[in-house]
Amino acid sequence: MGVRVAVVGATGAVGVEMLNVLEQRDFPVDYLRPLASSRSAGKKVAFKGSDITIEELKEDSFGGIDIALFSIPDNESRHFVPYAAKAGAVVIDNSAVFRMDDDVPLIVPEVNADDIRKHKGIIANPNCSTIIMVVPVYPIHRASRVKRIVASTYQAVSGTGRAAMTELKTQSEQILAGEEVAPKVYPHQIAFNLLPHIGSFTDNAYTTEEMKMHNETRKMFGDQEIRVVATTIRVPVFRAHSEALNLELERALTPDEVRSILSSAPGVKVVDDPSRNLYPLPIDASGQDDVLVGRIRVDYSVPCGISMWISGDQLLKGAALNAVQIAEHII
Amino acid sequence: MGVRVAVVGATGAVGVEMLNVLEQRDFPVDYLRPLASSRSAGKKVAFKGSDITIEELKEDSFGGIDIALFSIPDNESRHFVPYAAKAGAVVIDNSAVFRMDDDVPLIVPEVNADDIRKHKGIIANPNCSTIIMVVPVYPIHRASRVKRIVASTYQAVSGTGRAAMTELKTQSEQILAGEEVAPKVYPHQIAFNLLPHIGSFTDNAYTTEEMKMHNETRKMFGDQEIRVVATTIRVPVFRAHSEALNLELERALTPDEVRSILSSAPGVKVVDDPSRNLYPLPIDASGQDDVLVGRIRVDYSVPCGISMWISGDQLLKGAALNAVQIAEHII
Repeated sequence: MGVRVAVVGATGAVGVEMLNVLEQRDFPVDYLRPLASSRSAGKKVAFKGSDITIEELKEDSFGGIDIALFSIPDNESRHFVPYAAKAGAVVIDNSAVFRMDDDVPLIVPEVNADDIRKHKGIIANPNCSTIIMVVPVYPIHRASRVKRIVASTYQAVSGTGRAAMTELKTQSEQILAGEEVAPKVYPHQIAFNLLPHIGSFTDNAYTTEEMKMHNETRKMFGDQEIRVVATTIRVPVFRAHSEALNLELERALTPDEVRSILSSAPGVKVVDDPSRNLYPLPIDASGQDDVLVGRIRVDYSVPCGISMWISGDQLLKGAALNAVQIAEHII
Repeated sequence: MGVRVAVVGATGAVGVEMLNVLEQRDFPVDYLRPLASSRSAGKKVAFKGSDITIEELKEDSFGGIDIALFSIPDNESRHFVPYAAKAGAVVIDNSAVFRMDDDVPLIVPEVNADDIRKHKGIIANPNCSTIIMVVPVYPIHRASRVKRIVASTYQAVSGTGRAAMTELKTQSEQILAGEEVAPKVYPHQIAFNLLPHIGSFTDNAYTTEEMKMHNETRKMFGDQEIRVVATTIRVPVFRAHSEALNLELERALTPDEVRSILSSAPGVKVVDDPSRNLYPLPIDASGQDDVLVGRIRVDYSVPCGISMWISGDQLLKGAALNAVQIAEHII
């Protein structure tokens, strides 16, 4: 018996990857219903050798659906997700809307797969930079409790969506041609530039993106003591997020111990041989399921510190792959 | 009475800026001797409306010179700087070779101009990412001692020199055209990528660049207790370095107090109004003398923490401008 799956936002950067991941992982799809806005309805998506027509997303789109994978903007998820859940589908939602709800498990399978069974119809997929951080940090946390993380991110434009990927390409071409650029997706030029502004600004002068890394990590680790302070920066890279992490542990681990822990951790690939110029690069992480971890070294500025540098594909583990992995746990 | 100045490495990315800065700041140059490798000897540089012929850098190039501004690779500085000093010139050297020598003052005028007079013929210009960090951090340190800095850098290719700036441009064009790239200056592609590798790797798995930020800050602040832990990353940006900084202070300062301190600090420009999308951007810092500081907020993860985001022109304050400012203090 296969599964009846809806992919909501099927033409978006993440939605397209959801379809790819379902196919590549041979997810037992019995029936696929791609849903999108009226603009995309009637177009076709290729799936397992068939062309399937995209239907318009409506409140009554979810009859007979077992699992609905959502990747649409927050305000649209807020409206449509409850209809899908009410129709009996288990929703795996990529938006930020439901993540902190007590009734909604927030899941990275490598961290807290057991929480999936507590769901009441909605499961939340975490923020992409949070997912990419917790995959390698959680196994370390299990070995020696992580008390504080200072995270500086280097986030790809794919996190903003397909239009931002086009904007980076177009602006880069314009600047190389000596032309003026006219930012549309971002408030400022992104090509050959950096934007210290992801999400929107909150009352404490952090961005929503920065606070997600703090709040979502606490929820998933089930640890209200861990402190995560982040500076999240958009960089002119297409589709993999990177992060410089400084961890403060309860008890010291050596870099060799950390490498050993991470070598057997699911979803992680240690790439850490500086003598051969091997370390995580976003162009290498792109298209890979694993989060790459390297530059593992003692943070000599605190008693039990570890510094590292990580890169992970934003569209895969940061979004589509994580959602499909959750779906695999459900079935 | 004017000053007889040699600019050593006059055709390099920093050397060209040294000539520009000397001219723009109306430095009292009585006589200018541009020096470079044999490859560039005989070419001309424009200075204050004249074309001046570049001479080949030799051991005996420094007769009659008062101040020699050096910006050539470390191994060449190691060889030629002592000849200039022996000939009676005061050398301001941009290389890393002499920076940690007890006899050599390491100077950022906004931090420790008074140390200039201790020189014995050689003064060192600090590492670019260190300069850009200490300009805004030192005034905070004076108000409340900085105990620890976690720095993650986002460094422009200009720091590697002119060939790297060309490589970023060429590789970007190639990738946009769907062509393969062949890295020459860097071990990996830099366009649309990030390199966690600046300088060379040391025994503790940090890079030389990362350790410079620790060691040079201690020397300039005259504080062997301050701890700086850095992850230095090359980004596809042309000429301004940016840094995410997490400061741990002895006693808490509010963001308003920090903004007030920095508003009257020399060499700093506070750009910090997120509600109007105003924050430091490397494209805005490019060509500016001041280090831009913004995103100033409480680091809630420690008792007395401040987080901030800074951008400064690598070729100007990070190198040429700082060297000329030192020369201004000498005369």
